[in-house]
Amino acid sequence: MLNRVRSAVAHLVSSGGAPPPRPKSPDLPNAPSPQTAAPPEAPRSPPATAGSGSAAPAKTVEARASFSRPTFLQLSPGGLRRADDHAGRAVQSPPDTGRRLPWSTGYAEVINAGKSRHNEDQACCEVVYVEGRRSVSGAPGEPSQGQGLCFYYWGLFDGHAGGGAAEMASRLLHRHIREQLKDLVEILQDPSPPPLCLPSTPGAPGSSDSSYLVGSQSCWSSQKEVTHESLVVGAIENAFQFMDEQMARERRGHQVEGGCCALVVVYLLGKVYVANAGDSRAIIVRNGEIIPMSREFTPETERQRLQLLGFLKPELLGGEFTHLEFPRRIQPKELGQRMLYRDQNMTGWAYKKIELEDLRFPLVCGEGKKARVMATIGVTRGLGDHNLKVCSSTLPIKPFLSCFPEVRVYDLTQYEHCPDDVLVLGTDGLWDVTSDCEVAATVDRVLSAYEPNDSSRYTALAQALVLGARGTPRDRGWRLPNNKLGSGDDISVFVIPLGGPGSYS
Amino acid sequence: MLNRVRSAVAHLVSSGGAPPPRPKSPDLPNAPSPQTAAPPEAPRSPPATAGSGSAAPAKTVEARASFSRPTFLQLSPGGLRRADDHAGRAVQSPPDTGRRLPWSTGYAEVINAGKSRHNEDQACCEVVYVEGRRSVSGAPGEPSQGQGLCFYYWGLFDGHAGGGAAEMASRLLHRHIREQLKDLVEILQDPSPPPLCLPSTPGAPGSSDSSYLVGSQSCWSSQKEVTHESLVVGAIENAFQFMDEQMARERRGHQVEGGCCALVVVYLLGKVYVANAGDSRAIIVRNGEIIPMSREFTPETERQRLQLLGFLKPELLGGEFTHLEFPRRIQPKELGQRMLYRDQNMTGWAYKKIELEDLRFPLVCGEGKKARVMATIGVTRGLGDHNLKVCSSTLPIKPFLSCFPEVRVYDLTQYEHCPDDVLVLGTDGLWDVTSDCEVAATVDRVLSAYEPNDSSRYTALAQALVLGARGTPRDRGWRLPNNKLGSGDDISVFVIPLGGPGSYS
Repeated sequence: MLNRVRSAVAHLVSSGGAPPPRPKSPDLPNAPSPQTAAPPEAPRSPPATAGSGSAAPAKTVEARASFSRPTFLQLSPGGLRRADDHAGRAVQSPPDTGRRLPWSTGYAEVINAGKSRHNEDQACCEVVYVEGRRSVSGAPGEPSQGQGLCFYYWGLFDGHAGGGAAEMASRLLHRHIREQLKDLVEILQDPSPPPLCLPSTPGAPGSSDSSYLVGSQSCWSSQKEVTHESLVVGAIENAFQFMDEQMARERRGHQVEGGCCALVVVYLLGKVYVANAGDSRAIIVRNGEIIPMSREFTPETERQRLQLLGFLKPELLGGEFTHLEFPRRIQPKELGQRMLYRDQNMTGWAYKKIELEDLRFPLVCGEGKKARVMATIGVTRGLGDHNLKVCSSTLPIKPFLSCFPEVRVYDLTQYEHCPDDVLVLGTDGLWDVTSDCEVAATVDRVLSAYEPNDSSRYTALAQALVLGARGTPRDRGWRLPNNKLGSGDDISVFVIPLGGPGSYS
Repeated sequence: MLNRVRSAVAHLVSSGGAPPPRPKSPDLPNAPSPQTAAPPEAPRSPPATAGSGSAAPAKTVEARASFSRPTFLQLSPGGLRRADDHAGRAVQSPPDTGRRLPWSTGYAEVINAGKSRHNEDQACCEVVYVEGRRSVSGAPGEPSQGQGLCFYYWGLFDGHAGGGAAEMASRLLHRHIREQLKDLVEILQDPSPPPLCLPSTPGAPGSSDSSYLVGSQSCWSSQKEVTHESLVVGAIENAFQFMDEQMARERRGHQVEGGCCALVVVYLLGKVYVANAGDSRAIIVRNGEIIPMSREFTPETERQRLQLLGFLKPELLGGEFTHLEFPRRIQPKELGQRMLYRDQNMTGWAYKKIELEDLRFPLVCGEGKKARVMATIGVTRGLGDHNLKVCSSTLPIKPFLSCFPEVRVYDLTQYEHCPDDVLVLGTDGLWDVTSDCEVAATVDRVLSAYEPNDSSRYTALAQALVLGARGTPRDRGWRLPNNKLGSGDDISVFVIPLGGPGSYS
């Protein structure tokens, strides 16, 4: 099993950000096409040496299922216990032992204040080598003749209703991305436009010509230009879907608990791809300017999508919910009165006469952190949740959740970045109590206190951000300097310097 | 009939932008609630004096159905013939007779170069008085005790497959908006938050308190704050839907031909609401800065919505179409090869093995102006189109089209506008050949040539914009100064000065 999933990425903790050597044997040599592929690794399997983001000391399924932290934290059993302590809430970062994460990435995390037994966030940071599955012009299954590709990868996974999904995603999502990219290795390295069609016959060229076009005046007369960038976006999108499908297949046998938000960054061929499914957030702070690199997917931001689905597929509402939204719960005695509402087509509000079926629970209700789908879940995209049911009901919620991320692309080559330009990823534990501007101010404050070539500065920044969101214990709670409540949630932060591999280290 | 639909708005061509006097009798005195209301006016009815945007000289259903231009152009029969001349393509504007459109609005239009027999654009400019349907605290059906409300209204309607829908919308959409606002007259003038619930019992107060709330920790414990602004947005959204439903009801008896894009502006209580359904566009040019006030709804921009609908309701595809998009048409001989595709969840592209059902026509195909839904229609929102079928098929296209606008709000009171700050509305005939920046440059060039208090400057600007998009006849076509082709489409433009009523006239 270990060989079958062996990652070329074992250099999770690299010393200088240089790509790892190309492995001698291809990964998954006998794997079928990704559409029907077996999972790269079953979630119960032990971690693949240092190449996974899962717990180092875990020895059995049970131990790993109970609690794990990212391998790159290199936690001893004692360190693991301290990381698991809700009272102390000690901030965890990779040890300062001279080896550091790729790109001198900074990382820090802290456990919640008691809302769940363990830290349900997970993280992963990898350099992933992709060998082509086949040459475009070669026989299927034959290894690519050209050079493989390397991508850098960072992932934050914020679990809910258990840590299983986040833990599984932190170990496997980048491998699904690698699987999806295998078909593209040669195409992405060829400056000519991607072939629209790949042959099934060995040796036949891919076709991107227009010789098949019919009707010069019709909408068929054009052929879309497909960019290399959009192929990478498609690969990441499909990887999320395959990850989610794997969780669905294995949820019974392997106890994939709950679900997770996923925020991942892929750096490939000069571009940074930020894919987000859930309520984590990524921003770039560049020369003091804030560039949002994600948006949150919640019952509020996705209300119209959810309502449309409930409207088109009323069977998903089980006769228990209405797809309409009301500003508050309707009481039976209000029947016949006129209440404000909005449906899947509306952004504004209007009055409607209350009818019997309006007394059902609304599909979407609440505001802010209390907003819920079917009174149950507060995020609308992510991985897992295949067993999630409405409270006191057998009605499944998964049909309303989407596993697809929104992917934003940032071209690193379009701007000359300085050492203080960073991409900050955080789970909602950070953003619930910290604004983008406050993060930008902390970036400025912390980085200016360190020499530009001091590679510990990004970890110091991640720690400062986590501490700033956690606060200190005071007045029977965790408090910020302004005496507001700090975040009682798990908090995890990556700080990725945008100079990239080796540019100023 | 005339009384039943009599509009208080008869002052279409007002002399100073002041609101018209309040009518003595309420409109639609016996009308049921808007949800079940009969249409304010049947499309075959003659125009309601000067209060409608339809043709002045039309005397019969047939005459009006054949060709009409906005009343405010005050076209004589000879003028109407000149406006209908594809060879000359004379630019039409309201006559410079001292009376002008509200707010000194500028308007210009020109007929197409032969793509349809008549100009299928329509326009409307009105000041609409709204009398409350009922007091919140009074008996149902009883006229409001307070002051009514006035709104200013501009509408551009770009018809396709006939001029009927555009003509009907130009006469009636603002009346549907008025109907929707009747319930809100007192609420919008009361500075306290809108009541969430209106009583069915006379005299009972509306409820906006939280006394009905259950479970202080649940998502039910909150009640949403609903703003006055969002009520106006909801009223406009519902008005579009009622307009569309009226077209559906009356399409057989009254020959509502084709469909139309609708771009309307409502000014009410200090705010400008821009509602767009289709591919017209509105921008604000303020101190040289461009502020987009709409976006276009096309098969490209709405691809994922269309594909999701086709995926969830495959019966709408009739076994003839696939919801997947491919970059070009697939040939039967390519079966088994792998082609780029994307589905409703993807923004990127990936390869898939071509199967038999992929040979169906794609639901969405083509690019730019050639993009089509079901190989038939190039816009995805608007009014009408209830009879539209796929070419050589009985498959209806309407289920994929949405009548709902996107509404953007601009608060006029947040900025001190100068006479050169304008809101420009144009049908796609303008925008197909003119960029936002080119429009802003023309705004600057034309307005700086006129005195700030010269009220003809906005009409001159509208004419310049239309002329600039039409070009001049040369080399067997209409050409722009750079020798590119001018727009052969109908072109209609409103220029609305943002100083508002009377602020600098």
